[in-house]
Amino acid sequence: MKIRIYYEDTDAGGVVYHTNYIKYCERARSEIFFEREMMPLDGDQSGFVVKDLKANFIGFSFLGDILEVTTKVIKKRSASVLLEHIITKEDKKIFSMDITLVFVREGRPHIIPNNLYEVFKEDIIFK
Amino acid sequence: MKIRIYYEDTDAGGVVYHTNYIKYCERARSEIFFEREMMPLDGDQSGFVVKDLKANFIGFSFLGDILEVTTKVIKKRSASVLLEHIITKEDKKIFSMDITLVFVREGRPHIIPNNLYEVFKEDIIFK
Amino acid sequence: MKIRIYYEDTDAGGVVYHTNYIKYCERARSEIFFEREMMPLDGDQSGFVVKDLKANFIGFSFLGDILEVTTKVIKKRSASVLLEHIITKEDKKIFSMDITLVFVREGRPHIIPNNLYEVFKEDIIFK
Amino acid sequence: MKIRIYYEDTDAGGVVYHTNYIKYCERARSEIFFEREMMPLDGDQSGFVVKDLKANFIGFSFLGDILEVTTKVIKKRSASVLLEHIITKEDKKIFSMDITLVFVREGRPHIIPNNLYEVFKEDIIFK
Repeated sequence: MKIRIYYEDTDAGGVVYHTNYIKYCERARSEIFFEREMMPLDGDQSGFVVKDLKANFIGFSFLGDILEVTTKVIKKRSASVLLEHIITKEDKKIFSMDITLVFVREGRPHIIPNNLYEVFKEDIIFK
Repeated sequence: MKIRIYYEDTDAGGVVYHTNYIKYCERARSEIFFEREMMPLDGDQSGFVVKDLKANFIGFSFLGDILEVTTKVIKKRSASVLLEHIITKEDKKIFSMDITLVFVREGRPHIIPNNLYEVFKEDIIFK
Repeated sequence: MKIRIYYEDTDAGGVVYHTNYIKYCERARSEIFFEREMMPLDGDQSGFVVKDLKANFIGFSFLGDILEVTTKVIKKRSASVLLEHIITKEDKKIFSMDITLVFVREGRPHIIPNNLYEVFKEDIIFK
Repeated sequence: MKIRIYYEDTDAGGVVYHTNYIKYCERARSEIFFEREMMPLDGDQSGFVVKDLKANFIGFSFLGDILEVTTKVIKKRSASVLLEHIITKEDKKIFSMDITLVFVREGRPHIIPNNLYEVFKEDIIFK
């Protein structure tokens, strides 16, 4: 998953606005499903929501840069999943994040449907 | 309607990213309804969508600036409305936009519900 | 230039938020320079700014959709350029925009530097 | 610091997109300086950057909601500061975050200038 940095991603400090790295990770998570011709949800009233996250901002990035996002499954439970995202620029780590997602149906935690659960394999790194 | 400019609003050029002025106008339009304790929609599958817009970018704005957005109804039809937005900074016009909104229900144009239609009065400027 | 629609692009109406189409066009314009290993600017205090734009919102798009953005140079002047952007979804036009960009140096209009000027060829469509 | 939720803040899940809560906290931090007629920086090549953050997403919020953001200084060092942000909706906590900011000048950590340092008082909660 490659991310190009455009004007919209930067701020007056001349670098990428901090929350955007967290958005790039969400793009990477969704893309895992899209490229399998799936959606990261199961009907209108369901989907993954973020429960908590811990992020480290290690380096800067700038207009025109190309970043790479990887996703690794750290732990799977019946209704939640813990992922690790790493963002690199020219093979150097500039951002890392641990994030817990909970599957929610009609506003309440719910067992992750099988087809979605199987996508999050614990032994591979999604690129 | 006053808008403060934060880091998220600016880009690496040091000024407010162009599309954000268009977002501020949407905030102003929604706020017209919110401050009347209404929503700019009528049930889940309805709401106003943008049909076209014409925007002029006249001046720059920067981190920390306070902008003011006004909204004026130019023309009302049964299913659409033409509005003019003006954004000023210290009483100087820096942006103007004409925008046509269509009321849509389940993806198709629909007569604007009465309670929403009455809000868009043709003789006042919403601030 | 292909654009995937992620959660961040959509709003509570279930569709892509209107100003995002205008951002996708800016991505496409910047990418024209990036893919030539150039930047759309000439030093810190310069770059293209939007003077005016006229946008038509023709169709909806949704989470997971893939859009295509094309850019065509309509008119070139010494300090400005008029472009036409078209966004399609499965070969159907869903958005079009005419936009005038002015090259600015230290806050004032300035002749477009030669290397940037040459990129905007009038007889091709950038994809 | 009150934040109104507009269309741009929500996503196709019908709720506020997760990274936006982190943006609201940045607005609140910047506003602490703006309302003292200061900027959260000291010249062009300086400012606070985020080093790390830990966020908990406790409740949902929706189009039209009004949120309140508070900021509390947990720890001050010469070049960095640890803050706690809490976001409430109708006095109920829906989000909390610990965030470490480092003051940076020309890309490197630097002692926080006195006038900025004094703003971050350890015994008050900024609202």
